[in-house]
Amino acid sequence: MRWEGDVLALLDQTELPEAERVLRLRTAGEVAEAIARMRVRGAPAVGLAGAYGVALESLRAQERGEDPVAAALRAAQQLRSVRPTAVNLSAAVDAMAELARAGAAPGRLVAEAQALHQRDLERSKRLIEHGVKLLRTGSRCLTHCHTGPLATGGGGTALGVLLEGHRRGLVAEVLVGETRPRLQGARLTALELGRAGVPYAIVADGASSSLIAAGRVDQVWIGADRVARNGDVANKVGSLGLGLACADGAVPFHVAFPWTTFDAALARGGDAEIEWRDSSEVLELAGRRVAAAGAQALNPAFDVTPARLVTAWITDVGVARSADELERFSGTATPRLEPASSPAAGRRTRG
Amino acid sequence: MRWEGDVLALLDQTELPEAERVLRLRTAGEVAEAIARMRVRGAPAVGLAGAYGVALESLRAQERGEDPVAAALRAAQQLRSVRPTAVNLSAAVDAMAELARAGAAPGRLVAEAQALHQRDLERSKRLIEHGVKLLRTGSRCLTHCHTGPLATGGGGTALGVLLEGHRRGLVAEVLVGETRPRLQGARLTALELGRAGVPYAIVADGASSSLIAAGRVDQVWIGADRVARNGDVANKVGSLGLGLACADGAVPFHVAFPWTTFDAALARGGDAEIEWRDSSEVLELAGRRVAAAGAQALNPAFDVTPARLVTAWITDVGVARSADELERFSGTATPRLEPASSPAAGRRTRG
Repeated sequence: MRWEGDVLALLDQTELPEAERVLRLRTAGEVAEAIARMRVRGAPAVGLAGAYGVALESLRAQERGEDPVAAALRAAQQLRSVRPTAVNLSAAVDAMAELARAGAAPGRLVAEAQALHQRDLERSKRLIEHGVKLLRTGSRCLTHCHTGPLATGGGGTALGVLLEGHRRGLVAEVLVGETRPRLQGARLTALELGRAGVPYAIVADGASSSLIAAGRVDQVWIGADRVARNGDVANKVGSLGLGLACADGAVPFHVAFPWTTFDAALARGGDAEIEWRDSSEVLELAGRRVAAAGAQALNPAFDVTPARLVTAWITDVGVARSADELERFSGTATPRLEPASSPAAGRRTRG
Repeated sequence: MRWEGDVLALLDQTELPEAERVLRLRTAGEVAEAIARMRVRGAPAVGLAGAYGVALESLRAQERGEDPVAAALRAAQQLRSVRPTAVNLSAAVDAMAELARAGAAPGRLVAEAQALHQRDLERSKRLIEHGVKLLRTGSRCLTHCHTGPLATGGGGTALGVLLEGHRRGLVAEVLVGETRPRLQGARLTALELGRAGVPYAIVADGASSSLIAAGRVDQVWIGADRVARNGDVANKVGSLGLGLACADGAVPFHVAFPWTTFDAALARGGDAEIEWRDSSEVLELAGRRVAAAGAQALNPAFDVTPARLVTAWITDVGVARSADELERFSGTATPRLEPASSPAAGRRTRG
């Protein structure tokens, strides 16, 4: 993800691993489409794309001689709910809207989106530094979905930790849940691990529990789309099953996320809105029908893992070993890391 | 599955749901190939196919003027380990080999395979009668893989219970785990439910845990490939995850199988041989590569669910509510149900 003067450049994640197609988005509508179709995905990356989308619309209005503030607010309205589960999107878009409402010019909105982007990079680095301390030499890890550099503005979350852990000689092998229906694990995580030279193997999602039970996995690492005040984790569907298998097998279950993914306003994970996507994602694969004719499908895209199943929450502001510890971060994290003037910072401390 | 004079006729399950292709198998080699490629699958059906395979080879030898006993024993050797996890195959083939060793003519072997087939049909009926008693009006059930009539000689196991339960107005809806990598749920279970007019929806395997946790499922029903003396269940990979989710959510977890799937010689599920299949099943779908280039995969085809996660074992000889109760069946079941002269019966009471 790159800001190129007056457009947002993005790698189309739906074309990977077959092709590296760069999208150049000029409007909030184009950003909304890219988010809805998961051309850009991963909670942090979606948040940043949303912020840039508000700035883009404001710029376009100015070019046409229209009111940039009204355009920014319309864009924020359009973008904030395109994908409801990850808190990063609505939080980033709301922060941009607040700036616009206060009269920020398009250039100021662009600068703010870039500042969010820069802070995201820094968060990734800090998170990864905290995370690698939990790895042991020879760790065999399992991850789910895709949480690498492609999914964030920077170095990634859970996969970022594993990639850095391999660089430091700690991670011996990574098992990758393929992550049906969209196969982010088989397509994107495998791509990033392969490029980095990390030994890895893809497994069907149903196989993860048994590999954990059989002692093939030392640690499980996942990202998060929204973490509730009580430590519950909304993340890609399939995460709960991993949490249950880890608890049953006494395998550490690690959840890595930037502090922007913590939602202090959400009391418990069960209150998070879970996005249900189109059934065609389950019934088809790569455009080809795989299910019986006339079949219906349910397609919840996320699930909620209760805090009791989490061993550690790894964030840029530190590692919490209990939900209480995590909640204590929320009183201190934001002032320490965000400039007091940032509307985003103001919002994140509520609740 | 039908015996047609001197050949075994089978519906090719790999072609379903797109096409209904009937295979006519003439030799043990053809049967072994059909089992290995999963043209015939499902523990009871694979066992019957193996028995017919031994009889076929004995017939063919007789036609060529060769020794039918030696041919039957060679066929048994070839067939018994084609798929190692389900006990039905080795048990049926061993029973046929014992008959051949005692000098049974080809016609006698055919008659024995047909008798096994007939007993399998009767077992299905009894199992289903026991199973439907556990259903409540309006039950919303979830199942995994495919355990319907296509997978057995007769009425099926877990799916047989759900189909009959729907006929009797008890089952309101069935959720179907798609069952990667081979999608038996999306292809075969969906096909049978659709034909029977049962309301159903396919879900990605990773989504089952969350639907169970969210209260969308009243009961989970699966089949089994091998049940150990202590009640542990080897079944299609993904079953363990369902067992863990059911235990966590206090949802009944029901395992339905004919008594031929109980392996009294196996002390615990962890001792069962788990078949690992080719990684291409995970990396490809319908012949199309879905994973990143160069990706590797692990493909364990089965997993073991410990007895502590099972609510009830539903068999043709009764419903057990504990592993102790199940083991007590093994002392009584065989004499009650098999003619004393059957070598299969003799073998099943050992251990």
